[in-house]
Amino acid sequence: MTLVTQNVRVLESWLAGRWQTGKGEGKALLDASTGKPVASIDASGLDLGEALAYGREVGGKALRKMTYHERALMLKTLAQSLMENKELFYEESFATGATRKDSWIDIEGGIGTLFAFSSKARREMPNTRVFVEGAVEPLSRDDTFSGQHILSALRGTAVHINAFNFPCWGMLEKVAPALIAGVPCLVKPASQTAYVTERMVRHIQESGILPDGALQLLCGSAGDLIDHVSDQDVVTFTGSASTGQMLRGHPAIIRNSVRFTMEADSLNAAVLGPDAKPGEPEFDLFVKEVVREMTAKAGQKCTAIRRIFVPRASVSAVAEALNQRFARQVIGDPRQETVTMGPLASLGQRQEVLERVADLKTEAEVISPDTGAFPEEGAFASPILLHCDKPLSSDAVHSVEAFGPVATLMPYDDLEEAVDLTRKGKGSLVASVFTNDPSVAEEMVLGMAPFHGRVMIGNRQSAKSSTGHGSPLPMLVHGGPGRAGGGEELGGIRAIKHYMQRTAIQGAPEFLGAVTGRWVAGAPGHADSRHPFRKSLSELRTGDRLTTKSRTVTLEDIEHFAEFTGDTFYAHMDEDAARRNPFFEGRVAHGYLIVSFAAGLFVDPDEGPVLANYGVDNLRFLTPVNAGDDLKVQLTAKEISPRISADYGEVRWDCQVSNQKDEPVALYDVLTLVAKEWPENRTS
Amino acid sequence: MTLVTQNVRVLESWLAGRWQTGKGEGKALLDASTGKPVASIDASGLDLGEALAYGREVGGKALRKMTYHERALMLKTLAQSLMENKELFYEESFATGATRKDSWIDIEGGIGTLFAFSSKARREMPNTRVFVEGAVEPLSRDDTFSGQHILSALRGTAVHINAFNFPCWGMLEKVAPALIAGVPCLVKPASQTAYVTERMVRHIQESGILPDGALQLLCGSAGDLIDHVSDQDVVTFTGSASTGQMLRGHPAIIRNSVRFTMEADSLNAAVLGPDAKPGEPEFDLFVKEVVREMTAKAGQKCTAIRRIFVPRASVSAVAEALNQRFARQVIGDPRQETVTMGPLASLGQRQEVLERVADLKTEAEVISPDTGAFPEEGAFASPILLHCDKPLSSDAVHSVEAFGPVATLMPYDDLEEAVDLTRKGKGSLVASVFTNDPSVAEEMVLGMAPFHGRVMIGNRQSAKSSTGHGSPLPMLVHGGPGRAGGGEELGGIRAIKHYMQRTAIQGAPEFLGAVTGRWVAGAPGHADSRHPFRKSLSELRTGDRLTTKSRTVTLEDIEHFAEFTGDTFYAHMDEDAARRNPFFEGRVAHGYLIVSFAAGLFVDPDEGPVLANYGVDNLRFLTPVNAGDDLKVQLTAKEISPRISADYGEVRWDCQVSNQKDEPVALYDVLTLVAKEWPENRTS
Repeated sequence: MTLVTQNVRVLESWLAGRWQTGKGEGKALLDASTGKPVASIDASGLDLGEALAYGREVGGKALRKMTYHERALMLKTLAQSLMENKELFYEESFATGATRKDSWIDIEGGIGTLFAFSSKARREMPNTRVFVEGAVEPLSRDDTFSGQHILSALRGTAVHINAFNFPCWGMLEKVAPALIAGVPCLVKPASQTAYVTERMVRHIQESGILPDGALQLLCGSAGDLIDHVSDQDVVTFTGSASTGQMLRGHPAIIRNSVRFTMEADSLNAAVLGPDAKPGEPEFDLFVKEVVREMTAKAGQKCTAIRRIFVPRASVSAVAEALNQRFARQVIGDPRQETVTMGPLASLGQRQEVLERVADLKTEAEVISPDTGAFPEEGAFASPILLHCDKPLSSDAVHSVEAFGPVATLMPYDDLEEAVDLTRKGKGSLVASVFTNDPSVAEEMVLGMAPFHGRVMIGNRQSAKSSTGHGSPLPMLVHGGPGRAGGGEELGGIRAIKHYMQRTAIQGAPEFLGAVTGRWVAGAPGHADSRHPFRKSLSELRTGDRLTTKSRTVTLEDIEHFAEFTGDTFYAHMDEDAARRNPFFEGRVAHGYLIVSFAAGLFVDPDEGPVLANYGVDNLRFLTPVNAGDDLKVQLTAKEISPRISADYGEVRWDCQVSNQKDEPVALYDVLTLVAKEWPENRTS
Repeated sequence: MTLVTQNVRVLESWLAGRWQTGKGEGKALLDASTGKPVASIDASGLDLGEALAYGREVGGKALRKMTYHERALMLKTLAQSLMENKELFYEESFATGATRKDSWIDIEGGIGTLFAFSSKARREMPNTRVFVEGAVEPLSRDDTFSGQHILSALRGTAVHINAFNFPCWGMLEKVAPALIAGVPCLVKPASQTAYVTERMVRHIQESGILPDGALQLLCGSAGDLIDHVSDQDVVTFTGSASTGQMLRGHPAIIRNSVRFTMEADSLNAAVLGPDAKPGEPEFDLFVKEVVREMTAKAGQKCTAIRRIFVPRASVSAVAEALNQRFARQVIGDPRQETVTMGPLASLGQRQEVLERVADLKTEAEVISPDTGAFPEEGAFASPILLHCDKPLSSDAVHSVEAFGPVATLMPYDDLEEAVDLTRKGKGSLVASVFTNDPSVAEEMVLGMAPFHGRVMIGNRQSAKSSTGHGSPLPMLVHGGPGRAGGGEELGGIRAIKHYMQRTAIQGAPEFLGAVTGRWVAGAPGHADSRHPFRKSLSELRTGDRLTTKSRTVTLEDIEHFAEFTGDTFYAHMDEDAARRNPFFEGRVAHGYLIVSFAAGLFVDPDEGPVLANYGVDNLRFLTPVNAGDDLKVQLTAKEISPRISADYGEVRWDCQVSNQKDEPVALYDVLTLVAKEWPENRTS
């Protein structure tokens, strides 16, 4: 432990509504390039049980008062504020060894994740406090007892224990879904780079955008934090497998069935397809990607490529191409603009990497040149490419992770063997295959999928637009089975659900409606003298219903519709052919005729609060309609979702078309936009 | 340990394709009522590592060759076979202490779960081997790089460690989703009632319906089973919290990130609403339900009611009503038809329950009469109702579970307090509230939801159709947070996904299509001289595309359509009103007109393999259509799903309607039924 010099910045923790410092002697955090002290960190003596309780009681309460859209908009405001101040964080990040390009992933990638969750939540979730999931499950024949799944925010605090490599993104990608779910967070960054996280949390706190208790920060050791987690808390961990396994087995987590998610480093593979010979675009894309993954963040990414599988015939071509590109790297202090690869995060980290390389050398040989001779105060290292000729009978190359610019090149003889080799990693976050042959993609991807959380296919078509092997994206899941920790994060709305409890609600439909705020099939509707299209969003209630008069469909209608639209499909026009059809007993009306007539029956024509029909969901034709059948419609307001930043909102209507025997002819949801207010005197 | 008498049946384990017996001395299993030996059980010396490997290699391989529908149909056949032989299992079950009514839940409830999963899978999953989940995620502006989530079967064996109370249902409810996913199972029933499970597995094995290795049975102690689980295996556990926590913390489970699901006994609550006063139907329903939950299976259900919360004023009325009904119970050997409540599963189990009652008596008093004097060789017990007057300041009543006919009656003063009291259970499988007031249901259910996996509302409307507080259903999730183990089972397709790995696939749309077997937006389509409606299912390929000529929409068309259908909505008919609308710049065509004209453009009218349009999904109107606009359609075969037991299948078409500026006007999926074969000479 380095003693802290007097003038160094002392990191603080933002806990229980106040900035606090540990009671012990601070540990010095050193600049990765210069070795000079950046800050000191210590958390001894802090009351972490109080912090967890503060999150649950103060933060959770405030968040749960807001709707999903309100929380999502709050995140958007936060993302804007962080983006405007991004230079603050870039400035801090150089000391971690990150180049500006590296920090872009961390800072702008992290802020971009906030934006992405904000817009995804507003697009895919209703503006409510409870999330209704899936269809109503009828549990009785007479519709008096049904089931519906809902998700509601857990009442605990989410504890996020993050890795040193992404001090910003690591925090933001986990905080975003938790906050939208309505769950407060306590973030514990890895000490080594905590000064970047502290700077960002300080900015967030000063901005006042989040309610009190929604985000807390612990700078320093976790101490007895986990002893205090309870049954409604969540713990997530990103980092080394050994620490993660220790947390997973912690008595408080086991005893309270605490939700625990883990992303551990894994031996991610990249596979060069047999078709991607030297000279093919995919060969060059592959080489470029491997170099990028080995050098970005100096290889300190849990998604970085560690195992490089290529057809046996291409091993030397790939080795040569990689080494040529390594030779072009400029390694040094990232504050210098010409530098393309910074140091590792610390001398200790470099030591650890070199020890792991020594382990790998029991099975593989280093084939990259040593470009050494770096200043000894910095944690610099050259990219290290190893080669292992017998990967099927080797073990360390599939299990030892050197968390730096290190990877092992290995041959395969056929596709089946390539799949087997990737699986020897026993579960990874990501794998990629570079091929321009769809059948190679199919075999490789399906073979690798059960062992991976993400699989990327690289080829010439996506060369320019690909986000790359190493980038987790907010809309796609991140995490992998087995060695990768068995966790799952991100993936759009899925990530938000990880902070909610799924509950099956059972009861009479009317009561399910009272709980969910939606009209549930089987519940009564209510009609009054006003057509529901005359009601503004502020007047309309779920369950408001229109039952129309009926209209007879004639053969002339069917023929006329066919002629007018051009849809002269045989089932509508040819009695004999229709009878030969297994589903019809003669000529039937067009499905589109049925929904068109239905609209004619339910629409109120006058100008009013209903602004537009923007779509239809789940339309099913259930009983064929023949000439002479009478159609009538029952239209019921099912879900009302006002928008926050517009003077209208969405109304989903349940639409049931039935015939004279009360058989269901068509069922669907009609989607409309309805004005929040409608002064009747505005209509002419 | 009771020594085994000579003639007793020796239970065998079905492992690695052969019936095996342990090498040690068998432990005797005794009839719950008579105390006579039923069977002996022992698993010492069995090679459990071999069994797990056999499952992975033999069972998994065979299952993965089948499609979801093929596996689902296999389960249906199995369910039919079990139902035809159900008397075998009823016969065995009396020895466990179960009445015929109790065994109905176990046997026919279990078989019903197979039927339910079989039909749900065939209705909600495609007939493929890989499950495509959610929408395509566009990851580039030019549609050259996209993402898609898929789920594929884990390559391990699912280990199911079950509780003694449901020897049939406990096995079947877990085996059903695993087998549909394509994952083989190894079932370890609790020893006490393993003879029932063994009888059923023997029947299954002899039926030959499942492929080799798909279902294995371990009768006896788990031994070193868990030491052998690996990264692709799954372990589920139902039973006591202490055993479950031990398993969750097992080194092999921690180290390999093995998926672990746990259902532990919990202190489930039933709440009588403040409106449900004596004399109201809900009061009687509540009393009936509490009695049913305390006496069915002699209260040995993990979902049974343990905590009874009623308005303070109703405590004595509820106590009296419950005790009156308890007095009517006939307790005895369930082989006697008049018996309404059997013994506990064993003398040891009864001893355990009485010890827990003693714990409860530190805070509560027994208020039910002792109807004792049972034959001492049977594990008989009377229902035990306790009363605790100060539940807010008590602890044992919310944390000590007596797994028998035992519950504690407690008062509450207002709804908020009632919610708080249910939460003091720190996570339960289920809670119920009996009320006829929707606002009571809303407050109670939303308050309890984060702490419960299922919440039932009981009232007069659902009195006849309700499946009850204690019944998990295949289509609703089962499991609860915290004390209940934090697991989730059942819930329809969700349960099947628990045995699959979710993987995000990224790449050019054409390549995503090669992997998923579906056409992905952005991938090229292919057209040939034949209209795709002329192709039978066996000829059609995903990506087959029709691009139509265009059609101009005139003002006459709009007016004619309005007049013909009756849909004279102002946006179509009134230029000024349409201009006042925030979305339109003048009169627009009806959405239904657009889709009708689209069908007129894309339909091939002659009799052919396309049999019917059975629906439309995800229809969205994106750009308003004004008079003078030209519409054209691009129709692409997106997904082709042949049915196993019909001569047709489903085809989902991607339908894009665009205007003369190539702006998207409408996007939707058209759903059709298409014949597998179509001899052209059949058409006239």
